[in-house]
Amino acid sequence: MPNFNVGVLGATGAVGQKFIRLLQDHPWFTIHSLGASSRSAGKPYVEAANWIESTEMPESVQQIVVKDCTPKAFAGVDFVFSGMDASVAGDIELDFAKAGIPVISNARNFRTDPTVPLLVPEVNPGHTELIHQQSFTDDGSGWIVTNPNCVAVPLTMSLKPLHDQYGIKSVILTSMQAVSGAGYPGVPSLDILGNVVPLISGEEPKIHAEPLKVFGTLKDGKLTHAEIPIQATATRVPTINGHLLSVTVGLHNKPSSAEEAIRAVKNWESPIAKYDLPTAPDFPIFYHDDERYPQPRLHADSERGMRTAVGRIRSSNVLDLTFVAMAHNTVRGAAGGAILNAELLVAKGFIK
Amino acid sequence: MPNFNVGVLGATGAVGQKFIRLLQDHPWFTIHSLGASSRSAGKPYVEAANWIESTEMPESVQQIVVKDCTPKAFAGVDFVFSGMDASVAGDIELDFAKAGIPVISNARNFRTDPTVPLLVPEVNPGHTELIHQQSFTDDGSGWIVTNPNCVAVPLTMSLKPLHDQYGIKSVILTSMQAVSGAGYPGVPSLDILGNVVPLISGEEPKIHAEPLKVFGTLKDGKLTHAEIPIQATATRVPTINGHLLSVTVGLHNKPSSAEEAIRAVKNWESPIAKYDLPTAPDFPIFYHDDERYPQPRLHADSERGMRTAVGRIRSSNVLDLTFVAMAHNTVRGAAGGAILNAELLVAKGFIK
Amino acid sequence: MPNFNVGVLGATGAVGQKFIRLLQDHPWFTIHSLGASSRSAGKPYVEAANWIESTEMPESVQQIVVKDCTPKAFAGVDFVFSGMDASVAGDIELDFAKAGIPVISNARNFRTDPTVPLLVPEVNPGHTELIHQQSFTDDGSGWIVTNPNCVAVPLTMSLKPLHDQYGIKSVILTSMQAVSGAGYPGVPSLDILGNVVPLISGEEPKIHAEPLKVFGTLKDGKLTHAEIPIQATATRVPTINGHLLSVTVGLHNKPSSAEEAIRAVKNWESPIAKYDLPTAPDFPIFYHDDERYPQPRLHADSERGMRTAVGRIRSSNVLDLTFVAMAHNTVRGAAGGAILNAELLVAKGFIK
Amino acid sequence: MPNFNVGVLGATGAVGQKFIRLLQDHPWFTIHSLGASSRSAGKPYVEAANWIESTEMPESVQQIVVKDCTPKAFAGVDFVFSGMDASVAGDIELDFAKAGIPVISNARNFRTDPTVPLLVPEVNPGHTELIHQQSFTDDGSGWIVTNPNCVAVPLTMSLKPLHDQYGIKSVILTSMQAVSGAGYPGVPSLDILGNVVPLISGEEPKIHAEPLKVFGTLKDGKLTHAEIPIQATATRVPTINGHLLSVTVGLHNKPSSAEEAIRAVKNWESPIAKYDLPTAPDFPIFYHDDERYPQPRLHADSERGMRTAVGRIRSSNVLDLTFVAMAHNTVRGAAGGAILNAELLVAKGFIK
Repeated sequence: MPNFNVGVLGATGAVGQKFIRLLQDHPWFTIHSLGASSRSAGKPYVEAANWIESTEMPESVQQIVVKDCTPKAFAGVDFVFSGMDASVAGDIELDFAKAGIPVISNARNFRTDPTVPLLVPEVNPGHTELIHQQSFTDDGSGWIVTNPNCVAVPLTMSLKPLHDQYGIKSVILTSMQAVSGAGYPGVPSLDILGNVVPLISGEEPKIHAEPLKVFGTLKDGKLTHAEIPIQATATRVPTINGHLLSVTVGLHNKPSSAEEAIRAVKNWESPIAKYDLPTAPDFPIFYHDDERYPQPRLHADSERGMRTAVGRIRSSNVLDLTFVAMAHNTVRGAAGGAILNAELLVAKGFIK
Repeated sequence: MPNFNVGVLGATGAVGQKFIRLLQDHPWFTIHSLGASSRSAGKPYVEAANWIESTEMPESVQQIVVKDCTPKAFAGVDFVFSGMDASVAGDIELDFAKAGIPVISNARNFRTDPTVPLLVPEVNPGHTELIHQQSFTDDGSGWIVTNPNCVAVPLTMSLKPLHDQYGIKSVILTSMQAVSGAGYPGVPSLDILGNVVPLISGEEPKIHAEPLKVFGTLKDGKLTHAEIPIQATATRVPTINGHLLSVTVGLHNKPSSAEEAIRAVKNWESPIAKYDLPTAPDFPIFYHDDERYPQPRLHADSERGMRTAVGRIRSSNVLDLTFVAMAHNTVRGAAGGAILNAELLVAKGFIK
Repeated sequence: MPNFNVGVLGATGAVGQKFIRLLQDHPWFTIHSLGASSRSAGKPYVEAANWIESTEMPESVQQIVVKDCTPKAFAGVDFVFSGMDASVAGDIELDFAKAGIPVISNARNFRTDPTVPLLVPEVNPGHTELIHQQSFTDDGSGWIVTNPNCVAVPLTMSLKPLHDQYGIKSVILTSMQAVSGAGYPGVPSLDILGNVVPLISGEEPKIHAEPLKVFGTLKDGKLTHAEIPIQATATRVPTINGHLLSVTVGLHNKPSSAEEAIRAVKNWESPIAKYDLPTAPDFPIFYHDDERYPQPRLHADSERGMRTAVGRIRSSNVLDLTFVAMAHNTVRGAAGGAILNAELLVAKGFIK
Repeated sequence: MPNFNVGVLGATGAVGQKFIRLLQDHPWFTIHSLGASSRSAGKPYVEAANWIESTEMPESVQQIVVKDCTPKAFAGVDFVFSGMDASVAGDIELDFAKAGIPVISNARNFRTDPTVPLLVPEVNPGHTELIHQQSFTDDGSGWIVTNPNCVAVPLTMSLKPLHDQYGIKSVILTSMQAVSGAGYPGVPSLDILGNVVPLISGEEPKIHAEPLKVFGTLKDGKLTHAEIPIQATATRVPTINGHLLSVTVGLHNKPSSAEEAIRAVKNWESPIAKYDLPTAPDFPIFYHDDERYPQPRLHADSERGMRTAVGRIRSSNVLDLTFVAMAHNTVRGAAGGAILNAELLVAKGFIK
C-alpha cells in the first residue's frame, strides 16, 4: 500500500481542520507537518487551533508543533495540501513548488494558471497531464494541482453525464449555499438566521469560469476551455453543510425524454472507478428517485461527504432540462476533493 | 369615506387570521361576520381560533361568534373575503356568489375560471371588467375575484415593468419559499431546520400557469392568456415570511444595458396610484440598489408587507436579464393582496 | 457471541426508525419482525414507512412485510423493542408480556408500574432484579423493562456521580430540548424557527417523577423511590438532536470545591463497564473541560449518540453546584438506551 | 412639549443604530450629532455605517457628518446617549461628564460606580437622586446614568412585583439569549445555527451583581446594595431578538398560592405611570395567561419592544416560585431602556 508523509498548509483554518479530520485514518497519507501563520508557529496544534469540527481533534495531531509555511520547515514531506487563504496562498504555494514539493491546493490562486490542472477526478482525470507543462522546477519534481470552487465541483459533476451524452450548450443556475462555505467566523448569525442573502460576493465569476476549464479539451499539452455560457445567482441560506444547486441546461443534442436523461445519469460510469481510490465514493454521482431529495441536512454526509447527489431531472420548456444537485461543500467541494486529487495523482504515478 | 361590512370565510386558519389582523384598523372595511368549519361554529372567535399571529388577537373580534360558512349566516355583509382551504372553498364560494354576495378569494379553486379575474391590482387592473362576464346571479350582484399564488404575485409584479418595456419572452426561476406559505401546522421543523427542501408539491404548475392569465389580454370580454414559457423550481427554505425568487428572463426587445432595465423598473408607475387605495404601498415595486438586498427577514415587512422588492438586475449571458425579487407571501401574496383587490373593486364601483 | 431474533413494535414511527437504524449492524440482535398499525400491516417496510433518518433505509429491512402488533404475528422473536406511541403501547405491550415475549419498551405506559424497572444501565443496573416480581406469565418468561423519558436519562446520568459522592438533596433544572423529541411531524416550523417555546406539554411531571424511581432503593424485591424534590422548566429550542440541561443541585454532603466535584465526575466508573456491552460508550458520562461545551449540534453524536456529556460544573451560591448536561434524545434518551437495556439483560441472563 | 438636542456616541455600532432607529420620530428628542471612531469621523452617516436594522436608515440622519467623540465636537447637544463599546466608553463618557454634558449610557463602564444610578425606571426610579452625589463638574451639570445589562433588565423587572410583595431571598436562572445581544458581526452562524451554546463569556457576573444595585436602598445619598444570592447560567440560542429567562426564586414571605403571586404581578402598578413618558409601555410587566407564552419571536416586539413579558408563574418544590420572563434585549434591554431613562430624567428635571 502506498505510504506518504504529507504536510498541511493553513492547518489552523476551517479548511485545514477539515484536511486533518479527513486524513485522520487515511490508509495512504500520514500527517507529518502542519503549517500556519507566524502567530501560530511554534505552538502545539492543540493550542494553536480553535477547533471547530464536531468530532474531537485527533490525538495524533494535538502535540505536533505548528511550523511556518516554508519549504525548509516542511523537509521530509512527500507533498503538501494547501488550505490557506487566497491572500497568502499564492506566494507560499509557489515557494513550495519551486522547492520541488508538490502542492495539492484548495486555494483559488493557481486555478486559472494554464498549466495547472483544475481537477475533479471523475470529470477531467486526463488533465493531470498538464502537470508536465509546469516549469516550477527543472526536473518536474515541484508542481501544483488545484480543485475548483465548492459550487463548481457539484456543478461539473452533475453536468458530466449529460455533457458526455448530449453536450451542454448553456447553463442557468441558482445556488443555495451553506454557511460553512464562508469559513470561520464567516457569516454572522444576524445576517442569516431565518433569512436568505441573495448575493455571495465574488462567487458568481468563479462559477461562470471554472467549469469551462474543467470541461476543457487537452491536446498537445495545451488546454482549450469549453465554450458554455453559464449564468449563476449565488445565495446564502441557513444550512450548515451542503450547497444545493437548481440548474437548467440547454443541450446540443436533445434527449427523447427526461427519463432518458435520468438513465444517462444513472448509467454513467466513473472513469476513475478502476483505480479503487480510498476516498472515492461508490456512487460519485447519485441520483435520488424521491423528488423531495437531495436535501443538504439529510444527504451532505452520504458516503462520507464525497458524493454529488442529483434529483428532479425533468424537461424545461425554456431550455432543455432542469434538475437539482447537491454536494458537501467543505468535503467534496474542498478538502475531500483535494485528497481525492492526491489519490488520483498517486495512482497515476505523479506522487511517488 | 367608503364603509362596508365584510365577512371572512375560513377565519380560524392561517390566511383567515391574517385577514383579521390586516383588517383590524382598516378605514373602509369592518369585520361583521366570521365563518369557519362546523367544528368552530357557535364558539366565540377567541375560543375557536388557535391564534398564531405575533400581535395579539384584536379585541374587536374576540367575542364574535363564529358561523357556518353559508350565505344565510352571513346576511348583512357587503362582501366576503375567503381564506378557506381549497378542499372546501369551491362549493362554498359558489354558494356565496349565487346568493349575490361578492367573494374576494385567496383560494385557488376559481383562479382558472375564464370569467374570474386573477387580479394583481398593479399588473392587470383592467381585468376587473371580466366580472361582467360572470353569470352566478342574474343581476350581476354575486361574483368572484381571485388573487394568484404567493409566488405568482411577486413574479408578475417584478416582471411587469420589464414586460411593459421589453416584452417577456421566457422565464426561468427558482423560488426560495418561507414556511408560512404552508400554513399551520404546515412544514414540520424536522424537515426544514438547517435544511432546504427542493420540492414544494403542487406549486410549480401554478407558477407556470397563473402569470399567463395575469398577463393575458382582455378584448370584447374575452381573456386571451399570454404565451410565455415559464419554468420554475420551487424550494422551501427556513425563513418565516417572504418568498425570494431568483429569476432569469428572455425578452422580445433587448435593453441596451442592465442599467437601462433598472431605470425601467425604477421609473415604472403604478396604474392604480391614482386611486390612492389605503392598502396600496407607495412603492409597489421597489428596487434595492444594494446588491445584498432584498432579504426576506429584513424586507418582507417593508410598507406593511405590501411591496414587491427587486434587486440585482444584471445581464444574463444565457437569456437576457436576471434578477431577484421578494414579497411577503402571506400579506402581499395572499390576504393583503386580496384586501387590495377589494379596495380596487370599491374604487371601480364593483363593490358599492 | 449472543445471537437473538428481535422484533420492533411501532416500526414505522420516528422511534421505530431509530431502532432499525441502530440495530442495522448490531452484533447480537437481528431484526426478525416489524410491527405497526393495521394501516401499514401487509406492506413491505419500504412502502409502509416515511423514512426520516438521514442515512438510507437499510436494505435488510426494506422488503420485510410489516405485521400487526400481535404476539402471534411475532412468533419466532426472542424479544421485542417497543417504540409505539403511548396511546396504544399499554395494551399491546401487555399482550406480548402475557404471551411470554419480553418487551424492552421506550413507551411511558409501564414506567410507573412498581414491578417494571425504569432502567438506565449505568445508573441503576441492579433494578433488573425487579423483573422477578413481575407476574405477566406464570413461568416468568414474559416481562417488561422500560427506559426513562429523554430528559430523565441525561439528568440521572449526570447526577449519578454526584449522588454517589455527595447525595442529591434537591434539583432545579431548565431543559432546552431538540425538536426530534416530539417525533414526526412533531413541532411545526412556524412555532420554533428563530424561537424558543417555554413549555413542553406533559414533560415536566415526567422529569419530576422518573428520576426518583431510577434512584430508588431495591430491597427484598421492593423498590422505594428516592425523595428528591426536582423542579423543571422544559423548553423547546430550534435544535435537531440533543437535549441540553442547565441543572442546579443541593447536596447532602458538600464538596470542598467545584474542582473536587469535577474530579468525582471524571473518576466515576461505570458499574456495567465489566460487561463490555456492544452499545455502551467508553465514556458514558463525559466531562468537557472547555466551558463552551457540550453543545447539541457538536456533541450529540459523540460515541454514536450514547454519551451523556457534562460541563461547566461550578459552585452555586443558592444551592450547592450547578452544571450543564446533554445527551442525544432519540439515541441515548430513547432507542439507543433501550438497546443498551437489552444488552444488559442479555449479559445478566434475563434474555437467553 | 420638551425639546432637546441629543447626541449619539458610538453611532455606527449595533446599539448606536438602534438608538437612531428608536429616536427617529421621538417627540422630545432630536438627533443633533453623531459620534464614532476616527475611522468614521468626517463621513456622512450613510457612508460610515453598515446599517443592519431591518427598517431603512432614516433620511434625517443619512447626511449628518459623523464626528469624533469629543465634548467639543458635540457642542450644542443637551445630552448624549452612549452606545459605545466598553473598551472605549469609560474615558469618553468621563470626558463628556466633566465637560458638563449629561451621559445616558448603555455601556457597562460606570455601572458599578457608587454614585452612578443603574436605572430601570419602573424598578428604581428614586435612584436618580444619586446624581446629586456625582462630582464630575462643580455645578452638577455633567453626570452619568446607566442602564443594566440586557438580562438584568427583564430579571429585575419581572422580580419587581414579587420583591415588593414577598421579598426576593434567592434567585436561580437560566437565560436563553438572542444573537443580537452580541452585536454585529457577533455570533458566527457556524456556532449557533441549530445549536445552543451553554456559555456567554462575561455575562453571568453581571447578572449576579447588577440586580443587587438596582434593588439597592438609597438613604442619605448612599446606596446600599441588596443582598440576594443570584446564580445564573447564560446560554445563547438561535433567536434574533428577545432574551428568555427561566427563573426560580426563594421568597422571604410566602404567597398562599401561585395564583396569588400571579395576581400580584397583574395588579402591580408602575411607579412612573404618572409621568406618561412617550417610550413607556402601557404594560411594562405583562403577564401571559397562555402557558406557551412569552416566546421571543412572537412577543419581543410587543409595545415597541419595551415590555417585559412574564408567564408560567407556578410553585417550586425546591425554592418558592418559578416562572419565565422575556424582553427585547436591544430595545428594552439596551437602547430603548436608555431612552426611557432619559425621559424619566427629563420628567424629573435633571435634563432641562
